[in-house]
Amino acid sequence: MTVTITAFERSPDRGNGLARDMRLRWAFEEVGQPYEVRLLSFKTMKEPAHLALQPFGQIPTYEDGDLALFESGAIVFHIAERHGGLLPDDAHARARAITWMFAALNTLEPPIFDRSLVRILERDEPWYEQRLSALDDVIRRRLESLSTHLGDADWLDGAFSAGDLLMVTVLRRLQGSGMLEERPNLAAYVARAEARPAYKRAFEAQLAVFTASSTG
Amino acid sequence: MTVTITAFERSPDRGNGLARDMRLRWAFEEVGQPYEVRLLSFKTMKEPAHLALQPFGQIPTYEDGDLALFESGAIVFHIAERHGGLLPDDAHARARAITWMFAALNTLEPPIFDRSLVRILERDEPWYEQRLSALDDVIRRRLESLSTHLGDADWLDGAFSAGDLLMVTVLRRLQGSGMLEERPNLAAYVARAEARPAYKRAFEAQLAVFTASSTG
Repeated sequence: MTVTITAFERSPDRGNGLARDMRLRWAFEEVGQPYEVRLLSFKTMKEPAHLALQPFGQIPTYEDGDLALFESGAIVFHIAERHGGLLPDDAHARARAITWMFAALNTLEPPIFDRSLVRILERDEPWYEQRLSALDDVIRRRLESLSTHLGDADWLDGAFSAGDLLMVTVLRRLQGSGMLEERPNLAAYVARAEARPAYKRAFEAQLAVFTASSTG
Repeated sequence: MTVTITAFERSPDRGNGLARDMRLRWAFEEVGQPYEVRLLSFKTMKEPAHLALQPFGQIPTYEDGDLALFESGAIVFHIAERHGGLLPDDAHARARAITWMFAALNTLEPPIFDRSLVRILERDEPWYEQRLSALDDVIRRRLESLSTHLGDADWLDGAFSAGDLLMVTVLRRLQGSGMLEERPNLAAYVARAEARPAYKRAFEAQLAVFTASSTG
């Protein structure tokens, strides 16, 4: 039985691959596993059938027989545990890769995701410029630390891992801000990930959903 | 060789157990493993020796021989993988417990941690009331979803797990806000966790650091 994930019927990012189903699609492509996608409207996401799978009414979810999971980080980890290619075999390297998964989602993503929301929801508020500037300061400090750690390496810790996969999906939200270009090794890191065949297949798959929804 | 973690020399929360070393201390107590603590000043946290362990200059870290980890979520997971008591043996239940670990840190913690920061850093800004109110709305929606999921169960998914441990450390930041009391099952959930002997031992250990630092 093929695993089924959920994604937005109409992605709010217009096919830019920033919705969190992209992480799962990319992980499946890296490990060479098929998956099916059930598309949800914003209305359906808040209905009891979906809330039984995802208590917070969000996407993505993961269903495999009688196992149902949510949280993109947890699902990427589940895929990485079951199939080779996203976590090192060496126990220490594996623990460090998991550290980077949590760092992506808990240290980098909160201010970067906030920035996206502020730019949409608080643009007309009197505090907009000051709040955006404060957030940008936080983000720049985190990027500086990340850039220093990465140095001239290809990936965060040895071979490409689920830690890199999650980190790149977080950093891609900064494309267009100019902040990645201030740290050329980070811009190159994101470009290196986007050039992976698995990334490209995943990106095309989510883009096809948006294209179909906007021409239908 | 005993594992060594790092913690604040002077905890900014004055011994309330909200710093992230509390998660590690509690996890070690739940699995019955000893640990040593190296205390760091805010100055030391930004120096090269610590940055080599923690690229973002934060606490806690975890050192076990030549393995060094950071990110409290990753470290709790590492402890839970190595020792019994924090993750179920059943594969599906284990995957669901990991889902709740990510939900605690990626869905609940960001707005709740933001609220703590806003109350300290933006109290004198003209937008303070409006921003706090907007954050409280987000937090209340998340708490409503969590409360509905929990229902009258003791823990989020079967037996107490690392998912509960992380969730409770996140919810404790709301103590004093009145928001937990609006959802009596969530207030009872936090109290149930705080009554665990392992929690109490961990709390006392971090409190002892604060007490020593303030009378030294």
